[in-house]
Amino acid sequence: MPRVWNFSAGPSMLPESVMRQAQSEFVDFEGEGMGIVEMSHRGATFTRVAQEAEGLLREIMGIPDNYRVLFEQGGGRGQFAAVPLNLLPEGGRADYFITGHWSRSAFKECAERYGEAVAHECTRKDAQGRVEVDYGAMQVSEGAAYAYCCLNETVNGVEMFSLPDTGAVPLIADISSDVLTRPMDVTRFGALIFGAQKNVAPAGLTITVVRDDLIGRARRYCPSVLDWAVLAKHGSMYNTPNTFAWYMAGLAFKWIRSIGGTEELARRNQEKAELLYGAIDGNPFYRTQVAEGSRSRVNCVFNLRDEALNADFLKEALAEGLSGLKGHKVLGGMRASIYNAMPIEGVRALVDFLGRYAGKHA
Amino acid sequence: MPRVWNFSAGPSMLPESVMRQAQSEFVDFEGEGMGIVEMSHRGATFTRVAQEAEGLLREIMGIPDNYRVLFEQGGGRGQFAAVPLNLLPEGGRADYFITGHWSRSAFKECAERYGEAVAHECTRKDAQGRVEVDYGAMQVSEGAAYAYCCLNETVNGVEMFSLPDTGAVPLIADISSDVLTRPMDVTRFGALIFGAQKNVAPAGLTITVVRDDLIGRARRYCPSVLDWAVLAKHGSMYNTPNTFAWYMAGLAFKWIRSIGGTEELARRNQEKAELLYGAIDGNPFYRTQVAEGSRSRVNCVFNLRDEALNADFLKEALAEGLSGLKGHKVLGGMRASIYNAMPIEGVRALVDFLGRYAGKHA
Repeated sequence: MPRVWNFSAGPSMLPESVMRQAQSEFVDFEGEGMGIVEMSHRGATFTRVAQEAEGLLREIMGIPDNYRVLFEQGGGRGQFAAVPLNLLPEGGRADYFITGHWSRSAFKECAERYGEAVAHECTRKDAQGRVEVDYGAMQVSEGAAYAYCCLNETVNGVEMFSLPDTGAVPLIADISSDVLTRPMDVTRFGALIFGAQKNVAPAGLTITVVRDDLIGRARRYCPSVLDWAVLAKHGSMYNTPNTFAWYMAGLAFKWIRSIGGTEELARRNQEKAELLYGAIDGNPFYRTQVAEGSRSRVNCVFNLRDEALNADFLKEALAEGLSGLKGHKVLGGMRASIYNAMPIEGVRALVDFLGRYAGKHA
Repeated sequence: MPRVWNFSAGPSMLPESVMRQAQSEFVDFEGEGMGIVEMSHRGATFTRVAQEAEGLLREIMGIPDNYRVLFEQGGGRGQFAAVPLNLLPEGGRADYFITGHWSRSAFKECAERYGEAVAHECTRKDAQGRVEVDYGAMQVSEGAAYAYCCLNETVNGVEMFSLPDTGAVPLIADISSDVLTRPMDVTRFGALIFGAQKNVAPAGLTITVVRDDLIGRARRYCPSVLDWAVLAKHGSMYNTPNTFAWYMAGLAFKWIRSIGGTEELARRNQEKAELLYGAIDGNPFYRTQVAEGSRSRVNCVFNLRDEALNADFLKEALAEGLSGLKGHKVLGGMRASIYNAMPIEGVRALVDFLGRYAGKHA
């Protein structure tokens, strides 16, 4: 079957050229007579692949020399523990700016297992009852060890387009779903964490970009595999890393550089988002509950006015090669994730379907 | 280039048929128009793939119903923390039976970060000065929460062929390198942990097989992603799992079943080990420092009598398509890892080379 348009929120579609390259060299990488998954992570070949991937990420993301890049495992969820384990002293306090499901999950992990976490509710309803980010609520508590936010909430379809001023308090951000979707000033953050399975690579790789001075503060009982100082000291090879995802991340970074980097991706993602939200706003058959200024460019959460049609809508969409449109169980409805690897053609196909489906059922 | 014989200790060679199947369906899995790495872990297709893999493992390993199988991330190193975090009460004590590098590493993680760990040195030298396992030293301390061992030490080339009697104290074993290499009575253990990258799948997947009654005791500050109760409750999908390695593990399990299961693998691994150790014992050009009864069937650690030839030996071997023979940095020398996926032909090629190389330099 031809490739479908895969709107899954993660794991997600990867660039087709990246997928085909990984396939072609899967059993015999660079003529070595074995696949990349079969190679020692300490051998010369994988060491080069790993270092190239880090170098490419530093280049396309603009990561300064005083930040370390750590290739880890355990997903965003693992980092929800790693952040307080590495940064929150016993008896300390951390601020969580809550804009949706994932920032709330990070808050809970800290509050239930590590100490005092202050939840700041940072969304509100606008005049039409739609969700919008409340940047004014992003205030730092006295003595906070860090402030935490999630720049793009995949479940809620809410994205932050400004950053709070946290002064000397390090700002830690989960950027799993918007990493590399636009230029980002890394120096505004103490640490950035992201699971790879949306914009970068297969699942099972988590990358932490952390400022040097924040490394080396972990609690005694922090597992070594989540201790940033241990990982930094061993070049992310304290334990055997997810070599395949690391390699594929490198392919994705190379692809990003080849098409013009994050500036070009920002342009493409903006164009895709405008096309899709335009189709939803312009058709009374659909609605979205997120206010204009807070809409995620990469996770478009929307509903059919007649929710009884949900199952039929998904079935018809799939029949046309539009896959993964079912919303997250927390919110229901629909969600179209249109990350970096989704071409405009896929969004056009979805928009076309939205129009025809509405026409048939209106 | 044709496939080489890859003697790497991990990541390691995988069965060629498994590699080729994964390659053939990499971009389009079962006609769905996307690769397995691009699919939602919660979708119907991956759910089936995941459940089939667990079912196959239960079948070929003989895992009883009162054990849970957890698919995790973070490697053996992650489990070195997870074991005390899940099983050692605050102020409790655990016994570590040390037979080499990995059991010692597990001991250190516990002792440095979680509490009282008792190190029992469980190797000794035989009359010829060679290392052998000292089963008599495997004694449980009073009030121990668990006893820990590593059934096969990949660095030292030492394998345990008997199990200590720990009475009511649960025996926890790291079986990363000998899992599925022979039949194993799961009921003798409280928990079994193994990284997948030697006998099962690409790196980045760790499997825990744990008895029900040992789940639910985690310390408050155990990260959720290492908390066996959280993982069990969510079917190993609390965080997004390493879907690709999970899928490839299923392919490997299917391959194992197809060739006759662990009994046939035990026969093959024994045959390979006898052939290789026979060649080393029979040639004064080489030596091994492990006593007969304690030799690992899957990691043959050996030395050239003339260590000055090491680099030349490795170069010549590689030129003949024999890769990954360099020993672990801790011990130096040579190591041939001959896990399940290494066919007897690969060992024959190595034995043939050993003879010719010795003949040329003797």
